[in-house]
Amino acid sequence: MLIVQKYGGTSMGSTQRIQNVANRISHSLYAHSSTATHTSNTNAQNGNKLVVVVSAMSGVTDEILQHAYAFTPTPNERDLDMSLSSGEQMSAALLSIALNAKGLKSIALNGRQAGIFTDSNHTKARIQYIDTSNIKALLSEGYIVVVTGFQGLSDRGEITTLGRGGSDLSAVALAGALKADSCEIYSDVDGVYTTDPRIESKAKKIERISYDEMLELASMGAKVLLTRSVELAKKWNVPIYAKSSFSEDSGTLITTEENIMEKPIVSGIALDKNQARVSLIGVQDKPGIAAELFSKLSKANINVDMIVQTIGRDFKTNLDFTVPKNELEKAKITLNEFDSNADLIDYDNEVAIVSIVGVGMKSHSGVAAKAFQAMAKDNINIRMISTSEIKISMLIDLKYAELGVRVLHAAYKLDQ
Amino acid sequence: MLIVQKYGGTSMGSTQRIQNVANRISHSLYAHSSTATHTSNTNAQNGNKLVVVVSAMSGVTDEILQHAYAFTPTPNERDLDMSLSSGEQMSAALLSIALNAKGLKSIALNGRQAGIFTDSNHTKARIQYIDTSNIKALLSEGYIVVVTGFQGLSDRGEITTLGRGGSDLSAVALAGALKADSCEIYSDVDGVYTTDPRIESKAKKIERISYDEMLELASMGAKVLLTRSVELAKKWNVPIYAKSSFSEDSGTLITTEENIMEKPIVSGIALDKNQARVSLIGVQDKPGIAAELFSKLSKANINVDMIVQTIGRDFKTNLDFTVPKNELEKAKITLNEFDSNADLIDYDNEVAIVSIVGVGMKSHSGVAAKAFQAMAKDNINIRMISTSEIKISMLIDLKYAELGVRVLHAAYKLDQ
Repeated sequence: MLIVQKYGGTSMGSTQRIQNVANRISHSLYAHSSTATHTSNTNAQNGNKLVVVVSAMSGVTDEILQHAYAFTPTPNERDLDMSLSSGEQMSAALLSIALNAKGLKSIALNGRQAGIFTDSNHTKARIQYIDTSNIKALLSEGYIVVVTGFQGLSDRGEITTLGRGGSDLSAVALAGALKADSCEIYSDVDGVYTTDPRIESKAKKIERISYDEMLELASMGAKVLLTRSVELAKKWNVPIYAKSSFSEDSGTLITTEENIMEKPIVSGIALDKNQARVSLIGVQDKPGIAAELFSKLSKANINVDMIVQTIGRDFKTNLDFTVPKNELEKAKITLNEFDSNADLIDYDNEVAIVSIVGVGMKSHSGVAAKAFQAMAKDNINIRMISTSEIKISMLIDLKYAELGVRVLHAAYKLDQ
Repeated sequence: MLIVQKYGGTSMGSTQRIQNVANRISHSLYAHSSTATHTSNTNAQNGNKLVVVVSAMSGVTDEILQHAYAFTPTPNERDLDMSLSSGEQMSAALLSIALNAKGLKSIALNGRQAGIFTDSNHTKARIQYIDTSNIKALLSEGYIVVVTGFQGLSDRGEITTLGRGGSDLSAVALAGALKADSCEIYSDVDGVYTTDPRIESKAKKIERISYDEMLELASMGAKVLLTRSVELAKKWNVPIYAKSSFSEDSGTLITTEENIMEKPIVSGIALDKNQARVSLIGVQDKPGIAAELFSKLSKANINVDMIVQTIGRDFKTNLDFTVPKNELEKAKITLNEFDSNADLIDYDNEVAIVSIVGVGMKSHSGVAAKAFQAMAKDNINIRMISTSEIKISMLIDLKYAELGVRVLHAAYKLDQ
């Protein structure tokens, strides 16, 4: 099998931890993954083929950033990318030294040598294509190929970085381009949970979750994988195992809906405490008002999340939406400049959004009703409701945020 | 003028120190160097053109080495080079960020981008050629070009490092390839001294010194510049200013003999406490003995320094030589296996070599006599004597090492 593994900064955080990663890789050489969606690369005689993507040792990137921002609040991005990329070059090479020291055949490649080509959008470059010829040649020579995450090369020959979560993205993109059998993302958490275990200690690790569910959980704050990596994995159909590098737990498999036999109605509960509510009460109910408002907000670079509009009466309606808390002041300015003709504009910072996510709810009725009943039973007032095919989101008062998560977690028996 | 500057690890050792280097570079843009051997690059309207070569921030390289050697006493050199080179990539990029933050147009290049091509001899690669096209293009666009020292790219596309003193070598090689007007090597010492100021506090900074004298002083332990950088500078006729990045001192100019008007008879006194003496007493005085012995020592990778043979009598002679102290045991083994027919083989670890270096002694007589008289006056017994055109070396007992240096320093009035 061809396996792409990715180890984050915490997993690479010290000599001892790099040694642990080397041991883990050594075991992976002859391990069988629990699922295989491709079989073309299987090479039973010589064990698995491994491509290992690494982040910088934890602390190193922060240290570089500290230096850079000591000179200016706006370091020039081309040189910033060059300095940042040195962290992964160091960690990748050190891991390869550790692997060689164990008698394994290993080689470290930077973004250029791995053939990861990006656009020239420094500090947040997008991968344009991956020339896998070098990696494939090295794999067929029996090398474990260690690749610097987070970085690529622009067509101008400049070093670029991929932005937040960039090493995950490197791993998923390499797995896609190499048609790997699986992509294992190692961090300090052992998978995706039904909800944040710091809020609900009864939260359980999810064995399998679909890309779409993961996207909803990721965008709502689950920290295992960022949205863009999940999107890429979905697009290229790369099965991802989210695992801990500090345990032997099998982790969570993120895969297509078809690969999940028993679809739970609800997979997890997400919480977002980073939104503020904006309500336009008594807006004139005529076409174009909403369109104009949201295009103005968009032009001001304000990310609107939930939008709810109720049926009007007497030619008036209510329009509620949420924006990130740190963009609320910008939103107020935009709204002041916009003639909404609303009777009242109301803002509320003290809110949270709890969401129920699950592919099973597509084919089940009564899912929402159960949520509303559970919330009502504990006197949690639901201020806004918004639903999609696999998600039900509720805006509630901030003080009820954690309680709301626990209530919903129990209502759908996620602790069982 | 086109100036190549090199800043060592101590000069780059913190955010504040990188800021100081940026300030110094900023001043250099419009400064006039005290000598110019080429004038073709002079660009009075736009100030000087600057190429700045940097080492890794002090401590970074040691940290990387510590990690690498924690895995194995013999890290694989290809990956070691990749990890080591990250240090300069970080420091070069950070300096360029600092320069940009000051409103200067700057760009950082790694070895590949700077066009520094080496052989594949990892950890001690030799520069094969420098493709200056990229640097020249950037200079003509008005950039200050910051280049990672110590590293290059092999024709296999691998990152290589140049070994000890590699950043100096990068700077001298770039200065040669670019036909720079001067090469300024900044460190934490402000130039070359008549002798080690820790031994003789009256030691004086030398204003100008020839390449050959510098070579003799460098090989005897003067730490300002390593032999290979001086050799390269001599070969390519690159004038070097050895300066301190912590002072405004004009430093020492290392140049051709012709550029030194008043040639002092003696320029400096060197001390080497790292040699051990080997004496073959009463060796058969027949052809081929010395040849056979020294070829055997060479095969055992033992670096012989001083060799002295006295005229024999009664078909017997004495043969004395020195080897590095840490190679003495190897030398003993070689000698035990070699049938020298000597009456006695004597070893002495407790010795030191003091040397008088000066181009002026070529044309002056009595230089050696003065040394011998001075040593005799203070009862320092000279065990061996060896002379070259510009150097007189004396092997003395280790306990007299520092005294010998001071005696000679005074004898040639180097403190005046």
